[in-house]
Amino acid sequence: MTTVRLAVEYDGTAFHGFQWQPQLRTVAGTLETALQRLLGEEVKVAAAGRTDAGVHACGQVVSFSTDQQFPFDRLDAALNATLPGDIAVCDATVVADDFSARFSAIERTYVYALFNQRRRAPLFARRAYRVWWKIDVDGMCAASAHLLGEHDFRSFCASPPDDGITLRDVRRLRVECRGDLVRIEVAANGFLHRMIRTIVGTLVECASGRRDPGDVPAILAALDRRAAGHTAPAHGLYLAGVRYPGYDSYSEPPLFRWFP
Amino acid sequence: MTTVRLAVEYDGTAFHGFQWQPQLRTVAGTLETALQRLLGEEVKVAAAGRTDAGVHACGQVVSFSTDQQFPFDRLDAALNATLPGDIAVCDATVVADDFSARFSAIERTYVYALFNQRRRAPLFARRAYRVWWKIDVDGMCAASAHLLGEHDFRSFCASPPDDGITLRDVRRLRVECRGDLVRIEVAANGFLHRMIRTIVGTLVECASGRRDPGDVPAILAALDRRAAGHTAPAHGLYLAGVRYPGYDSYSEPPLFRWFP
Repeated sequence: MTTVRLAVEYDGTAFHGFQWQPQLRTVAGTLETALQRLLGEEVKVAAAGRTDAGVHACGQVVSFSTDQQFPFDRLDAALNATLPGDIAVCDATVVADDFSARFSAIERTYVYALFNQRRRAPLFARRAYRVWWKIDVDGMCAASAHLLGEHDFRSFCASPPDDGITLRDVRRLRVECRGDLVRIEVAANGFLHRMIRTIVGTLVECASGRRDPGDVPAILAALDRRAAGHTAPAHGLYLAGVRYPGYDSYSEPPLFRWFP
Repeated sequence: MTTVRLAVEYDGTAFHGFQWQPQLRTVAGTLETALQRLLGEEVKVAAAGRTDAGVHACGQVVSFSTDQQFPFDRLDAALNATLPGDIAVCDATVVADDFSARFSAIERTYVYALFNQRRRAPLFARRAYRVWWKIDVDGMCAASAHLLGEHDFRSFCASPPDDGITLRDVRRLRVECRGDLVRIEVAANGFLHRMIRTIVGTLVECASGRRDPGDVPAILAALDRRAAGHTAPAHGLYLAGVRYPGYDSYSEPPLFRWFP
């Protein structure tokens, strides 16, 4: 058996999310179709982040195992020759058979792009969440400090995971402002369903005077999704990197490529 | 009569260029339809740059005149409420009746985004021209120096203008490299049809060892399109700004927003 780790980039706009769904164009389905064409057998992929519809990825990591023979050092080029333009493989490496892109990951980093401008900006349209009212980034920073560390994030979770465990360890939550763009970086051991988008929606409300940054501990304590803010849209979110023992897939989203 | 100057941003991907064409979705047609809906009369727009299909704009300038009454200080908001998501008006200002976005312009600045990486990058796909072989940016700089100043650019022109004049004054031509992106800025009093894309194609060939940077003077002297290089694709090109006496519309393309 051969196990392969893929680093994958995609524009989430035209995908119905990562997870395979019947009749729908998904990232998993697109990768599995391309792999099946090359390997001649059905392949199932596992991913570090099962991104929702519209969410982008520059540092997604995927793994699969196969009994087929293939010149795996040329798998990335072979895959990119068959994959459509909105998805590409950045790296393909044969790894130990016990590697799982999903279960071996020790940290995921997402970047959220917020665009704070009154007018629409077509060149940012599917790349950042536009907030047209003036937001106070200091309020976002103050609110975000309460979310750092290990907490029960049930209030920031659209639907609970299969194991019911809603404890997550948020290791980094940085809000940086540059002109009319705001870059929000969140790293944790793992994330709950729509957790980052709910965090961003809540931070935006704290930065808009609709909530007080000091309310965040009470939102966490409520353990109720209705206590938190709105869900920020998918198109501002990027899965930027995943950390494994000995490997890190981090890649900065294009909007922030030169962000100092 | 009221004459209005509009600063316009668009993602060129889904437009068949700026100029009105029957049955096709164009920037001019889209703007004229929106203006007609608001003003109740047929309006013709003039533009600083008649961009080709696929070319983006962050600093396009458009003007039109009308005899209708309208609260013109709210025209930008009214237009943005009716325009589709891939085009927006950044500013609308009532100007002197002798103003023409096309004929009053004294300088146009375009930015071309080149992405030099072996693998495809989906998040840059419709935003930059990917050159997969290694290019030598010093060669591009050396070649570009020969194009600065006033020259007959007939060799860099897909089809000659109506007046047959192919003399243009290139005032800036800067090639800057940062990581795997190359930013090419070209400013001139005006440009010929596909002139920038032919310049970029030629510079890329000079940077790839297929031409010598020292050949550029001979290419200019040939006065023949066949002497120059290939036409770089439209999707890497951005109309970034237009200069008028007392007004400059410059706006940096998103990819280079934080470029130092």
